[in-house]
Parts: sequence; structure tokens; C-alpha cells
Amino acid sequence: MNEIELAPDLLSVVVARTLAEEHVADIVETLNEQDSATIAHILQELPFERAVEVLDQPELADAAEALALLPEDRAGAFLTAMSADRAADVFQDFDDETRQRLSARLDRQTRTDLGKLLAYPEHSAGSIMTTEFVSVPSTWTVQQTLDYIRRVERSRETVYAIYVLDPATKKLVRAVSLRRLISGDPAAPVESVVPAHKPITVTPEVDREDVARLITKYDLLSVPVVDAEDRIIGIVTFDDVIDAMIAETTEDVQKLGGMEALDEPYNEIGFLAMIRKRAGWLSILLLGEMLTASAMQFFQTELEKAIVLTLFIPLIMSSGGNSGSQATSLIIRALALREITLKDWWRVILRELPSGLVLGSILGAIGIVRIALWQWLGFYDYGPHWMLIAATVGGALIGIVTFGSMMGSMLPFLLKRAGFDPASASAPLVATLVDVTGLVIYFGVAALILSGTLL
Amino acid sequence: MNEIELAPDLLSVVVARTLAEEHVADIVETLNEQDSATIAHILQELPFERAVEVLDQPELADAAEALALLPEDRAGAFLTAMSADRAADVFQDFDDETRQRLSARLDRQTRTDLGKLLAYPEHSAGSIMTTEFVSVPSTWTVQQTLDYIRRVERSRETVYAIYVLDPATKKLVRAVSLRRLISGDPAAPVESVVPAHKPITVTPEVDREDVARLITKYDLLSVPVVDAEDRIIGIVTFDDVIDAMIAETTEDVQKLGGMEALDEPYNEIGFLAMIRKRAGWLSILLLGEMLTASAMQFFQTELEKAIVLTLFIPLIMSSGGNSGSQATSLIIRALALREITLKDWWRVILRELPSGLVLGSILGAIGIVRIALWQWLGFYDYGPHWMLIAATVGGALIGIVTFGSMMGSMLPFLLKRAGFDPASASAPLVATLVDVTGLVIYFGVAALILSGTLL
Repeated sequence: MNEIELAPDLLSVVVARTLAEEHVADIVETLNEQDSATIAHILQELPFERAVEVLDQPELADAAEALALLPEDRAGAFLTAMSADRAADVFQDFDDETRQRLSARLDRQTRTDLGKLLAYPEHSAGSIMTTEFVSVPSTWTVQQTLDYIRRVERSRETVYAIYVLDPATKKLVRAVSLRRLISGDPAAPVESVVPAHKPITVTPEVDREDVARLITKYDLLSVPVVDAEDRIIGIVTFDDVIDAMIAETTEDVQKLGGMEALDEPYNEIGFLAMIRKRAGWLSILLLGEMLTASAMQFFQTELEKAIVLTLFIPLIMSSGGNSGSQATSLIIRALALREITLKDWWRVILRELPSGLVLGSILGAIGIVRIALWQWLGFYDYGPHWMLIAATVGGALIGIVTFGSMMGSMLPFLLKRAGFDPASASAPLVATLVDVTGLVIYFGVAALILSGTLL
Repeated sequence: MNEIELAPDLLSVVVARTLAEEHVADIVETLNEQDSATIAHILQELPFERAVEVLDQPELADAAEALALLPEDRAGAFLTAMSADRAADVFQDFDDETRQRLSARLDRQTRTDLGKLLAYPEHSAGSIMTTEFVSVPSTWTVQQTLDYIRRVERSRETVYAIYVLDPATKKLVRAVSLRRLISGDPAAPVESVVPAHKPITVTPEVDREDVARLITKYDLLSVPVVDAEDRIIGIVTFDDVIDAMIAETTEDVQKLGGMEALDEPYNEIGFLAMIRKRAGWLSILLLGEMLTASAMQFFQTELEKAIVLTLFIPLIMSSGGNSGSQATSLIIRALALREITLKDWWRVILRELPSGLVLGSILGAIGIVRIALWQWLGFYDYGPHWMLIAATVGGALIGIVTFGSMMGSMLPFLLKRAGFDPASASAPLVATLVDVTGLVIYFGVAALILSGTLL
């Protein structure tokens, strides 16, 4: 063995000994700064249980790469010992060759579990659930249940919810919390401490966002996932849901910014991948915005007669985009929180129409004052018809802000209705949609007010 | 008693009987559709324990209004029985008169606890913590601890984390989970089952976002809040943190949309309150955007000579805003997730500068092709110098998209450095800041390329 290979090994031993005492989340943070070869070395040097704990953290970024570098029997042992949902995530990150190589090293039970988990669609309850939960037949006593929990505690993701099954059909009949269980009479049947109601359940196809909503609404530690026959096949725990919520928020904020969701941390995604995620929407928006050039060509006679009108084009167009952006983010969030649903679209119109008119009037007034001030103070001479120009700008602002609010609030509804994510109604998309109409409104108001004088 | 008063009472009795069997979160949903008088009636008719459970839900919107309508002794009893953190929230919503009236009805302990909770700054750990937790002296045995938990279980928000105190100093020394506790030998001291490390703690001033980060990072059910002497004064539980995360996301999305955070659901906030939250930023942005009018006045000679240039103003300005909006939302989210910190600003520049140049070149190429196509196909005649005009548009797009990416990515850093919320770097704000410079870049490139021909 040459020195270059020896060095990381020695280092790994030292690092592993130091790390073994740390909190697992801090170990992960340290490992995330290393390359996958170093991570693999350290995982081998850590005590086995500790290494499994580390691998179980979804925050460990290069887990798949590191496991692929380990001897097959060790990697197989790790994957078998890891929680099933996390092992499935890691499996998804393997290349085909590694997946086949390591799959052969798993025991049959683990292989079957993984196969099932991997078959569920992305972002579904099935894909984030774990199969390590506590279930007992309803015929057991409280004491039997507690003894069982003590035995399996270390191999279960949570023992705070105990699922009580019908002994004959294996159907899920009740869920009881550990806190209620320990308060019960040990000799009494477990059925004596269960609540009166059936637990809230989801099917594996349910979207993770809806699972998050249930966990939040009912303040649950976990939600059982059941099959068509009401048999429990896994649970989704609150920490999986928190992770899912953070990921969803990141996606939404990036979509709101007018791009595709990165799906990777900003400082880890490759340069070309990032360009791809951004260039698509930028190009589409540019193509849409080209309609403004066509609209301007259409109004060219007006422009040439009253070049003073061009001065206010950016100001007027951006106000429409801004009010649209406000309305869009309000509605996207209200839809996400289920404060409003698709059928409330007309309520929103009844709200946004007067809002737009009031906001537009405020901006219109500011615009008129600005032009009047500049004229009086002699900063700029808008000519003899400056009052009509001010009226045009003010009137256009009312029209455009109202139109922007309507457009911005309806776009998320339209997208959702068409089956898209309402969060794709980004501020840039709304602004682009409002811009062309904004020009038409502006020149329309100008034609109305200025015809016979400037036009 | 006349019929009008009788009717809601009778109704409340019926409704209360039906609701008593429902899940508490569903009762809250039903109550949220009623007015506060009806809620008050129903609360009185529900079994006491059930009513307290309902009042303990932060989702019950009109809890303060309903309590204010109840007889004082009943309201006082409810407030005393409610969890301390929730009672403090409700107290904050009372008007001064009700606060004083009901404060007199509380027992001394509750009054002191509430006073302390209300003194913590908004959004701090102290303001969302509960004082109902389980702590035991380190001299107790596992059995003593379990017996104690059984006794107090119903009055504690969570019993899954047990805090072990030094019997002399009352300092927090360890935290142990209930799952580990029940696995221990009942006769052994509780110290035999505690982990080797001190628990993760926060002080009451810590922001709720940082508490959320700790709970997420370390997969905790609750975090203890300690005073300067390391004595535990409360705990923040994961469900408080989920609620806080949802509220923070709502604030961020609304700020990103270019407005103040509503702080109330869209369908509940008053019309004028909403106008106020939106009009402020719209007006500021309009005032900022007025600089574009000044910039255009400055370039008026160029505009008059080459009116064809005005056709592309909206297109060019919006592209700068769009690329800025992308960069801003990327950086806001990366900062929120701590993927990058303030000191990484130069790393971001090194990333955004080439990104901007590549994205700008893509858009520039599209712009040039568009102009060339229209010219060749005869859709529009840009005159004999159409190639130079195309080059101007292409060059300006490269400059503006690069500038937009830089501006959009640096603004969140600048805001954070100055002590503001980086999420205030909204898409509309970035667009407005980029617009004025965008015009200068456009006319600068035009002067360079077109001087001697069109200009």
C-alpha cells in the first residue's frame, strides 16, 4: 500500500474516533464537506450502529456514492440495517450497476421492502413512508404491548404511535399513543386505552403535501399508510413531513422567481444544470415579451406623433406587473394553505376588482402629481397639453393596475384548473402577460384623451 | 328570554352534542365558519375538557372574541386550563379592557406564567414555548419517573421528552426520550438511561426560524428553552415549529410578491388592511420606476433620431427584471436554508457573473434571430441599418441579463447585511432597480454601435 492510499485511511481512523462522540447531525455536517472516498473510509471506521445512524440521515448528501465505494458485504449490511425509507432513497441514487451488485447482498425481506417502496411515485406518501412501525393485535394486554415495544424499540423509527390490528383480518382498527398506553392498567387489554375513533390514514398514492396538511391539522407524530384492504403498510413521520415541506417551499420560491425548481442546493448544482433550469423560462418569457415589440409597431404612428408618451411606458408597464405579482403570490399561498379552493375564483374576482381599482387610483394620483410637479417646477416641459398627458398616465395606471390584479389573481386558478402547479404563475410570467395588454390599455387611453390634440 | 336569544342557544346545544364526538381539528373547522357569539355558546355547551382541547388549537381563529363573550368565571376557568403558550396568544388578542377583566379571574400561578410569556418578543422561542413540560430530579429512579409521567400526562403538552435536573441547582443536565425511559430497568436511577451528551437548548430570545432549524436538523420532538443559569423555563414542540414554518413561508412568499406580509388569511383580512399592505410597496416601486421616465428624458435626442429603438424597450427591460428575479429567489432560498452565508457573497458573484453572461448570450441570440427573421420575412422594415439594430438589441440583452443576475443575487446579501429580511428583495423590487440601469445600458450600447449611422 503506498502512502497516498494510507494517508486518508489513517486520517479516517482519527476523524472517526473524534466523530463517534458527536451528535449524529453534526457528524453529517462534517462529512458533507468531504469527498465520497473519505466518507466511505470514515463510515468503515465508525462503530457499526453509529455509521448506520449517520447513513439514516437524509441530510447526508453523498451516501449513495460512499456506499458504492465500500466492500459489498459491508455496504449490504449497512443497507439492511438502515431505515427502509432512507435505504430506498439511497437505492434510487445508485447507478444501475451498483444497484444490481448491492441488491444481491440484501436479505430477502429487505429486498422485497425496498422493491415496494421504490415502486411508489415520487413525492407520494408511499415514497416517503417507512416500514418500521409498531403494530400489535387488539387481543394483547397493555403489558404485552409495552414489553414488545421495549424489545423492538431500537429497530423502529417511532414507537410513540402504536397501531392496533384486528387479529383475524390484520386490518388497522385503532392507533394509540405511547403516553396513553403507559397510563393504562398493565393487565387490561390494549383496547381499553385506545381512543373511540379510527385513526386518520392515507393511501400510498397521496401526495406528500396532503400528508403534511393532515399531520399539521391534527398535530400528529405520524400517519399510517394503508392499502386497499385497510392493512397498514407503513407510516409517514412528522420529521419526513418537515423535510418534505422544506423541499416544497424551495420549489415554490424558485418557481415564483420564474425558473424551474433546481432540485439541488444552489452551491452544489452544476453550472450547466443551473443554466438549463433558468434559460428555459427566460427564453419563453422573452418570446412572450416580443409581442410588446409587435404592439409598439402597431402604435408607431401614435408614438411618432407624441414621443412624450414613450417616457412613461416602462413606468406604466412595471406597475401592472407589480400589482399582478402581488395578487399572484397572495393567491398561490392562499391556495397552498387551502384558505381558498378552485370554486372560490369568483369571490377572488369580487375582491381583486375593487382592490385593483383602489390601488390603481392611488398610483394614478401619484403619477399625475409627478407630471404636474415636474411641469410646475420646470424640470421638464410636457408641452401645452401636459394636463391631458397627466390624465392619460393616471387613467392608464388605473386600468393597468386593475388588469394586473385580475390577471395575477386568476392565473394561479387557471394553472391549477389545467392540472399545473399554481406556483408556476411566477412574477415574471404575470408581468409578461400583463405587459402587452398594458401597452394596449395605455395607447387606448391615450387615443381617448389625446385625440384631436396630440394624436 | 325572547325567541331570538333562545334560538342560537338551542342550536348550540344540538351542535355541541354532535361536535363532542368529532376530532378536535374538525370541530375547529366547523367553528371557524361561525360568528364569535355562536362559538361562545357552543364552547359553553361542550364538555369542559373538550372545550379546552378546542381552545388549545391555534387554528381556532376567533378564540379571543368568543372568550370575551363568555361569563367571566367560565372564561377564567378555560384560560387557566388551556396550555400556557396558547393562553398567552389569546391574551394578546384581547382588547385592554377584556385583558384586565379576565386577568383578575386567573389563579396566581397562571397569571405569573402568562405575564412571563407575554413579555418575550414576537416570533421568539419564548413567545411560542409552553411551560407545561416534564422535568424530574436526576436522583429519581426510572420507575419514579414513569409514575410521575402517568400522573401528570394529561396536563403536559408532551411527555416524550423528559428533562433531568440537578437536584441542588435545578440546572438542566440531560434530556431523555420516553422510548428510552420505558426500555430502562425500573429500579435503576433515571441517570442510567440518559444519553452521554447535554441536550440542545435555546434561550428565550432565539428566533423561531432558528428553533425550527435546530428541530429539523436534529430531528427533535421538542427543544428546551433555558435561562441564563441553564434552568429550563419552557419547551418548544415540533408542532409549534411546523406552524411557525408555515407562517414564515407565507410571509416570505408575500414579500417575494412585492408587498408586506398580510399576517391574516386572504379571505379574512379586511379590505382596507389589505390595500394598506399592498399600496405601500406599489407606491415606492412606482416612485423608483419614475427614474425610468427621467432616464428616457435624458436620452430623448437619441429616441427622436431612432424611434425604432423604443420598440425594444419593454422587451429588454423585462429580460433584466426576469433574470434578476431568478437570481433573487435562488439566493433568498439558499440563505434561508443556510446553504450559503453572508461571507459567501463573492462565491455567488463568481457563479452569477458567468451565468448571467451565458443566459444573456442565449437571449441575445434569440433577439437577433427575431429581428433578422422579421426583416427577411418582411413583417417589419427596420431600415437599412437593421443589422446594427439587431446587434444593439443582442448586445444590450447580454449586458442587462448579466447586470440583472448580479443585482438580483447581491440584493438579498445587502438587505441581510443591513439587518433586513432578505425575502424583502422581491421580484418587483429587483425589476425596478434593474430597469433604470437597463435603459442606460441599452442606450449606451446603442450609442456605441449606432453612432454615425442612426444616432
